[in-house]
Amino acid sequence: MTSVDAAREYAAAHGQQFEQQLIELVSIPSVSAESQHKADVQRAAEWLAADLRQVGAENVQVIQTAGHPIIYADWLHAGAGARTVLIYGHYDVQPAYKEDNWKTEPFEPTVIENVLYARGSSDDKGQMFIHLKALESYLKTSGSLPVNVKFLLEGEEEISSQHLMDFVSENKELLKADVCVISDTGAQEIEQPAITTGVRGLTYMEIWVYGPKDDLHSGGFGGIVHNPALGLAQILSKMHNPDNSVAVPGFYDDVVVLSEQDRADIAKTDVSEAVVKDLTGVPETWGEAGFNFRERLGARPTFEVNGILSGWTGEGSKTVLPAKAMAKVSCRLVVNQNPQKIYELVRDYVARITPPTLRSEVKLLSTGSPALMESDLPEVKAAARAYTTGWGKEPVFLREGGSIPIVVDFQRELNLPVIMMGYGLNSDGAHGPNEHYSLEMFHRGIQTAICFLDEISK
Amino acid sequence: MTSVDAAREYAAAHGQQFEQQLIELVSIPSVSAESQHKADVQRAAEWLAADLRQVGAENVQVIQTAGHPIIYADWLHAGAGARTVLIYGHYDVQPAYKEDNWKTEPFEPTVIENVLYARGSSDDKGQMFIHLKALESYLKTSGSLPVNVKFLLEGEEEISSQHLMDFVSENKELLKADVCVISDTGAQEIEQPAITTGVRGLTYMEIWVYGPKDDLHSGGFGGIVHNPALGLAQILSKMHNPDNSVAVPGFYDDVVVLSEQDRADIAKTDVSEAVVKDLTGVPETWGEAGFNFRERLGARPTFEVNGILSGWTGEGSKTVLPAKAMAKVSCRLVVNQNPQKIYELVRDYVARITPPTLRSEVKLLSTGSPALMESDLPEVKAAARAYTTGWGKEPVFLREGGSIPIVVDFQRELNLPVIMMGYGLNSDGAHGPNEHYSLEMFHRGIQTAICFLDEISK
Repeated sequence: MTSVDAAREYAAAHGQQFEQQLIELVSIPSVSAESQHKADVQRAAEWLAADLRQVGAENVQVIQTAGHPIIYADWLHAGAGARTVLIYGHYDVQPAYKEDNWKTEPFEPTVIENVLYARGSSDDKGQMFIHLKALESYLKTSGSLPVNVKFLLEGEEEISSQHLMDFVSENKELLKADVCVISDTGAQEIEQPAITTGVRGLTYMEIWVYGPKDDLHSGGFGGIVHNPALGLAQILSKMHNPDNSVAVPGFYDDVVVLSEQDRADIAKTDVSEAVVKDLTGVPETWGEAGFNFRERLGARPTFEVNGILSGWTGEGSKTVLPAKAMAKVSCRLVVNQNPQKIYELVRDYVARITPPTLRSEVKLLSTGSPALMESDLPEVKAAARAYTTGWGKEPVFLREGGSIPIVVDFQRELNLPVIMMGYGLNSDGAHGPNEHYSLEMFHRGIQTAICFLDEISK
Repeated sequence: MTSVDAAREYAAAHGQQFEQQLIELVSIPSVSAESQHKADVQRAAEWLAADLRQVGAENVQVIQTAGHPIIYADWLHAGAGARTVLIYGHYDVQPAYKEDNWKTEPFEPTVIENVLYARGSSDDKGQMFIHLKALESYLKTSGSLPVNVKFLLEGEEEISSQHLMDFVSENKELLKADVCVISDTGAQEIEQPAITTGVRGLTYMEIWVYGPKDDLHSGGFGGIVHNPALGLAQILSKMHNPDNSVAVPGFYDDVVVLSEQDRADIAKTDVSEAVVKDLTGVPETWGEAGFNFRERLGARPTFEVNGILSGWTGEGSKTVLPAKAMAKVSCRLVVNQNPQKIYELVRDYVARITPPTLRSEVKLLSTGSPALMESDLPEVKAAARAYTTGWGKEPVFLREGGSIPIVVDFQRELNLPVIMMGYGLNSDGAHGPNEHYSLEMFHRGIQTAICFLDEISK
């Protein structure tokens, strides 16, 4: 039996054990955005380090940063001339509260019909953990791997990887590799796996609108001073043109026009209006005129309102004229757009459209660069063969709507191709309530990851 | 010495004691809107009942309702032919939190330079308490009053007097009187007292906008479904015309056009741009074109946003596409406008401007009717004489921006004139942070209230 087959057999035989381990991992509320969960993030890091040691990884380190820790581990005994694969993943998760429409407690993992419900089950603990189990399956059978591997797992992906790139820049030798693989993306359906070739960038901002110096009585002052909550609404209403394109001047200046070939390729994986309506429950779809769903998600930038807060939002009727209003907003960016420049364009536009009756401020919270990969790279082809063998189906290539800013950062700093081998589904509910992960995909993911380490060695 | 002079002398001599009692009263957090303060509202009612008994009022009752209690008390020994004055006030207060920009704890009363800082110090505990101390000043000196008095104090004014009018309708005989006096309004400055002849009505609503059935990942779905937070902003931006008039069709249909005489009268008490800017801190004033400040506040209806909430509003960057968005909004209405009709107009307009990509709903939270009084009523003239003697300055007549819906309800149900004798200032910060009340006004108010009971008996 070849070592890859032995590893695949081991993974199949230990499926239930792997599931139990994943359940333990997702029960740790490692929410990086909320300071009350700082110890939980640390606990998740220690848990993963222990698992890496147990499966046979070496040099396992939990490295403290000014924020949450980074985990490094490796196995480097594949021999002279062997390639090295850098595996990146993140063990932090988005905030989650039962009252935000969760049917189960977000940190009390629940399996219903072979689907695991828990925050982080798909994004990214479930997908990341696949690689640890692929490593285990080799080392517990052949005692070796066909390639060298290095693990780099971070705890700040959901808060813009605040300390990761400093670590990468300072540890280029440690992280030196021939290819990087990231599993933090999704396919449309289980039977059609996908390799993501494009991810969007991100510029995340807060727009603040200020009026009176204090909250006022709306009866005593309503009608003589400009209400900042109204002013914010008026500003936000000017962010889009009637065709739903973004109205910020210069916003599209650096967007690469899609070629006919691009559009033909993208059209192959487009989804239908019916699927979008069914998946989301909206009465009608919406978006920039002249582009199909997949183009709008993967090849066109957007402006979204992620949150708004102003004035009285509790029980009953409080007749306040609020002193200020705030919106969290973000732009998804496509290849060739610069996140910092987009911030400056939005900032300048908001300043221009703020009436003299109010003051405004646009704060930059975080940025991430967009990325686009060639699909005929040998490493992408190896990944495709791994899906065909391990998953049982040839993958499609997708430009995704989400953002994985470190893709571009890795490419630049470490000078290597980054392959996004998604083991999730777009409908997994990442960032929303009832995030879930198909355990069937978890197991098919492990099989595919085992095959990838084999294919990439060839 | 006449009984009025004896009472005035007693009030002057007991000023410090009265202040201490008021401080005790405002330290009770009787917030009617928040269920966690239910016992505090009850406690404030018991405290006032005890004070009424101590000052010599009779038939003192704390009457339970389905919400917060109503207090009734009277003194009816003025003799055959004597008039009866019904005194209304409220002992509940608006919510208040230190973190909303209060310099002191809102329920730890603090006196700084003869000004009392505390929630409810002006609205309405301070103003209402004046009448109890006027009663005390007569009864502790002459042992009698020149008129009969009845007190009706409620604990639900800040939540639209939900149970008061049922009580009034069912107790018309008990509440029978010749005139009603309410002190819950403000003047522009201490040296220029004001009788309010107009108050605006109110229609308080929530606008809900619904999109996807759950919160979504803004990367995975932004650009293909309509963001409800954006949609809400777009809807709110259509509530005003470019001249800042309200854009809801039919909104102004029932508004009485101001006569030249009305405008001339109102112009006498108008405030300057500089005063509004200084009082509020706004960079420029705002409002409906073609009307001065006092007209916009007292004689024109408005549409205000009192609060907005949607999506992620906590720390950091959460890239959510929210499932829903909510705004608390209210219209201040002027005489002849019908609050229920205004709700229906807003509801229909919002339904009409909601795009097919979203769903919306307008919920009615509460209503109150507008009121306008003739300034040459004998009861108004008696009130004016009371200010001239007790306050030391002839009052002006004002149309106020705020709403006291029970004014119209009392007029209708009890068939009596309602006189609004304000003992506060517009700059007291009612409903906002750092609400405060000048103790000088408190004492001048007690003198005026004593004089009123004398003047109204003539």
